[in-house]
Amino acid sequence: MRYKITIEYNGSKFLGWQKQKYSIYSIQETIENAVFNFTGEKIVLYCGGRTDAGVHALGQVAHFDIQQAVEPYRIRNATNYHLKSTDIAIINAEIVNETFHARFSAKKRHYEYRIINRYAPVVLEAGYVWQIFKPLNVEIMCEAAKYLLGKHNFSSFRSKYCQSKNPVKTIDNIEIIQNKDHLYIRISALSFLHNQVRIIIGTLVEFGRNSIDPNQMLKILTHCERNYAGITAPAHGLYLVGIDY
Amino acid sequence: MRYKITIEYNGSKFLGWQKQKYSIYSIQETIENAVFNFTGEKIVLYCGGRTDAGVHALGQVAHFDIQQAVEPYRIRNATNYHLKSTDIAIINAEIVNETFHARFSAKKRHYEYRIINRYAPVVLEAGYVWQIFKPLNVEIMCEAAKYLLGKHNFSSFRSKYCQSKNPVKTIDNIEIIQNKDHLYIRISALSFLHNQVRIIIGTLVEFGRNSIDPNQMLKILTHCERNYAGITAPAHGLYLVGIDY
Repeated sequence: MRYKITIEYNGSKFLGWQKQKYSIYSIQETIENAVFNFTGEKIVLYCGGRTDAGVHALGQVAHFDIQQAVEPYRIRNATNYHLKSTDIAIINAEIVNETFHARFSAKKRHYEYRIINRYAPVVLEAGYVWQIFKPLNVEIMCEAAKYLLGKHNFSSFRSKYCQSKNPVKTIDNIEIIQNKDHLYIRISALSFLHNQVRIIIGTLVEFGRNSIDPNQMLKILTHCERNYAGITAPAHGLYLVGIDY
Repeated sequence: MRYKITIEYNGSKFLGWQKQKYSIYSIQETIENAVFNFTGEKIVLYCGGRTDAGVHALGQVAHFDIQQAVEPYRIRNATNYHLKSTDIAIINAEIVNETFHARFSAKKRHYEYRIINRYAPVVLEAGYVWQIFKPLNVEIMCEAAKYLLGKHNFSSFRSKYCQSKNPVKTIDNIEIIQNKDHLYIRISALSFLHNQVRIIIGTLVEFGRNSIDPNQMLKILTHCERNYAGITAPAHGLYLVGIDY
């Protein structure tokens, strides 16, 4: 039986999604162990979007196979029981057929990046947003973001450790929502390069901080070199919101 | 000089706004001490909405007087410095004239109550929302809420310890915003009875949980007795959003 699960997690205390050789603090291994604890079966969990250390998820999706047939609500509840106090929760579980693959069947990944733009310290959302002290020019950020829409070579926006063979990606949507001192930047694409979202955010913040002419974004794109783009925004402001299949 | 300050706090670890005889864990005393630490003046802080233990604030307002004249941005920064690691932050400080009183000049108080309605455990917002496991009938809650709008005797919706002489209050606005499994209930009025917002929320949740006929709300109002209304919703879902002057 193949199960698709939807997962929420607070990434703060984890080294990221992926199982590590020398650490047990991966989200993948924590859930694999929880499922083993009530099924007695060793599973391998495949996810739709491998998140880095510190990145949160509202709607990560993964799948796994087990021999026995268990009601989906029992998969959810029993896994949650064994995940108690781990900062991970299974929001939903369902049976899918064997052609479904959390990674390869995904049609679109949705990320959100949360910024708080003020000088006063952050209390209620500490650890869940990136605080920018200097006032941001949001209009310029919106203009600059438009250059990233569509199909481009995103070499300037990928980590030096990115293993992807093809740096060409298509961004379907990028929007900036402002609510008082909060900015929510939403980005959707079929897939992303390593750190692509966080480098895009770091670059947009640089435009907003220093009121850089938005059309400079075109130059950054065409240079195809990592050091032309801005910093990699911190992980704790990033949320994997959901994945479409 | 009179200063008006706007304050954000995480109420979880405090016994509430008001200074206590046998405890130092009040928000009022914590801020009074912070101001004393850099001005050397003992102040008395008056707030616009005394919040109970565990209640959070996004925009509490308070005022205090000191002899010396300090630039407002210094009031904000120096107080924040001395509030470090207390879960309280001064968002804004400004000079006001002596006719301004945080409590008596207030024209409207805005509260928001946050509910998450799902069976799966809450991870990212644990401690910041009230989790209701059973699906809520939100339509019924919206209908029932309408009966509370306007001027009523709210005796059914006040704590047995409420010291207000007059139980008649006017609710100017009450709206329920649904976003997936989240409910945000916003309530505004010139002033509230003790626990009024939390009892209103507890009662609305009872309507939504058990699909009670919305017009039963009228009966609860007219009975004017606390035990006709629902439970007092937990403090940790409640936010003092702001105060109009």
